[in-house]
Amino acid sequence: MTTLDDLPIRDDLRGKTAYGAPQLDVPVQLNTNENPYPPSPGLVDDLARAVRHGAATLNRYPDRDALDLRKDLADYLGHGLTAGQLWAANGSNEIIQQILQAFGGSGRSAMGFEPSYSMHPIITGVTGTRWIDGAREEDFAIDEARAVALIEEHRPDVVFLTSPNNPTGTALPLGVIERILAAAPGMVVVDEAYAEFARAGTPSALSLLPGNPRLIVTRTMSKAFAMAGTRLGYLAADPAVIDALLLVRLPYHLSTLTQAAARVALAHREELLGTVDALRAERDATVDWLRQRGLSVADSDANFVLFGKFPDRHAVWEDILDRGVLIRETGPAGWLRVSIGTGDEMAAFRAALEGVLG
Amino acid sequence: MTTLDDLPIRDDLRGKTAYGAPQLDVPVQLNTNENPYPPSPGLVDDLARAVRHGAATLNRYPDRDALDLRKDLADYLGHGLTAGQLWAANGSNEIIQQILQAFGGSGRSAMGFEPSYSMHPIITGVTGTRWIDGAREEDFAIDEARAVALIEEHRPDVVFLTSPNNPTGTALPLGVIERILAAAPGMVVVDEAYAEFARAGTPSALSLLPGNPRLIVTRTMSKAFAMAGTRLGYLAADPAVIDALLLVRLPYHLSTLTQAAARVALAHREELLGTVDALRAERDATVDWLRQRGLSVADSDANFVLFGKFPDRHAVWEDILDRGVLIRETGPAGWLRVSIGTGDEMAAFRAALEGVLG
Repeated sequence: MTTLDDLPIRDDLRGKTAYGAPQLDVPVQLNTNENPYPPSPGLVDDLARAVRHGAATLNRYPDRDALDLRKDLADYLGHGLTAGQLWAANGSNEIIQQILQAFGGSGRSAMGFEPSYSMHPIITGVTGTRWIDGAREEDFAIDEARAVALIEEHRPDVVFLTSPNNPTGTALPLGVIERILAAAPGMVVVDEAYAEFARAGTPSALSLLPGNPRLIVTRTMSKAFAMAGTRLGYLAADPAVIDALLLVRLPYHLSTLTQAAARVALAHREELLGTVDALRAERDATVDWLRQRGLSVADSDANFVLFGKFPDRHAVWEDILDRGVLIRETGPAGWLRVSIGTGDEMAAFRAALEGVLG
Repeated sequence: MTTLDDLPIRDDLRGKTAYGAPQLDVPVQLNTNENPYPPSPGLVDDLARAVRHGAATLNRYPDRDALDLRKDLADYLGHGLTAGQLWAANGSNEIIQQILQAFGGSGRSAMGFEPSYSMHPIITGVTGTRWIDGAREEDFAIDEARAVALIEEHRPDVVFLTSPNNPTGTALPLGVIERILAAAPGMVVVDEAYAEFARAGTPSALSLLPGNPRLIVTRTMSKAFAMAGTRLGYLAADPAVIDALLLVRLPYHLSTLTQAAARVALAHREELLGTVDALRAERDATVDWLRQRGLSVADSDANFVLFGKFPDRHAVWEDILDRGVLIRETGPAGWLRVSIGTGDEMAAFRAALEGVLG
């Protein structure tokens, strides 16, 4: 039998294993930061109607530039943005890949501050870009002066910032982003996948876009919008950045169905984002409860909570799984991450953790 | 205003323009090799039903490995294939990109035989792989001995073959593929996007898969399956090849809706592929008619016909467009390509060309 090792794969892929959280059939799934609330019957009706409409021309290629969708996304984000400043792809992973294909590549480098979204370094590697880890402080913040010094030393072509950060939940003050933007010689990407969950008063990097053509803000409909199955990531940036991405995007990358589904979700945004308040309250209660249990807990502006520290986190993760609750073994050694689910799901999580901790 | 030139894009992208056929609103669209027949009401009903079903869990990520779809694709292809030998992505463009990410990259090369599918060299470039053009003969065939000599000289990591070839329509004898497979040191990709349109007796490279772990056969649902709007490309290969692609694929790249729509289309394959005979007949009639008009016409096993040669092909293309028929200005100098549409559409094409040629 032929194995992977027998094939002429790229040398830097040898010995690697495929990325991916375990997809297990467990009653309570709190491992991939999904929104636990399924679409309403009204949304499903509208989606079925939109698909019927789109299906009439499914033999034709989709709108290659997804202009209607980009208009709707601009309208949602506000900040005076227009369709020409928006771009969409199959999940923010494809957005990140397109950014690295246009601005990274062989002989170029990208910097991030770990622990952070694990796909940043992975996609960096796949695109042949060199990865530089800037490392976060003990409290998971980014030290402004140290970050600027690192950027001046390494001169990365792309800098990834995340606010709120995954898996720690840490939001980034705008001042830090501004300082990094001033110091960075290349593109600065602020990954705001979890922005809608941030606590009141947390500003978005979208407000920094005017006058900053090297700034890119990425978003997703997988989290607050409860549309992980639709796979729709997007970004806002200067129109020249979109011109750059057009050079590397696969033509017709976004299907007719994806464009239609994303537009239906945006039309239902009041209903979909209506779940955010409940999830924020559940998150804050989870943080409080974990702290009362004497655990270390990172402040969270996202729909998940990082907690620890456990001498054997794998054993704790497995014990919780045995009790029917799937959380995520990720982040720095000793920590675990739980996504915020419904009230019932969080009760199940608390009961499971109680059982484990005794 | 910031322009593309002001941004720190990769040097090899400077001066390039985005790929893409003009998307023009013209009555008769014969430019992107789409199938002119829209889905039936029965298929649309089933699609709406499947989307309703999938929408219930749209807040959750899709099956990352698309196992049910891969089973259905294996069942469709036959040749004793199983799900573990199939892989799917957002259009065959993403399939090609994943292959190059796993087996190409910086310091590696890919070879094709042009004129051929223009995305092969473009995606090769985007992935940082060096492109080598093997060039076809005058009659658009691949000369076996010359191809083998070129491969032995350049030792490409990936060889792209196309059967039937776009934009010429030329099918490739299995013997040529076998000789190239024996000579090539790396992966050999046979792009069979138009396989279903081939004339009776044209064999598929699928029959060569047993014992050839470096062979990949790619397919699409955009052409014969009339599902261009769904964006579903796929491949068949040794399971070890799928293992390699898992190292570079973006997790959850294939949405719940795409997986569902592709499965519905496969369930309706008898109906969808029922259009193929009509399109083949229309193609053969188009070839005959063009030859009777005294034009040069390439033999075609696909759903398009390459014809010429015109001293000023752009003028002819524009003249035909002015008469409401959009065809494609592509292929070697002097040639034009027309996709095969319905009987009415082909009548409109013939009338327009008659008008132009006088």
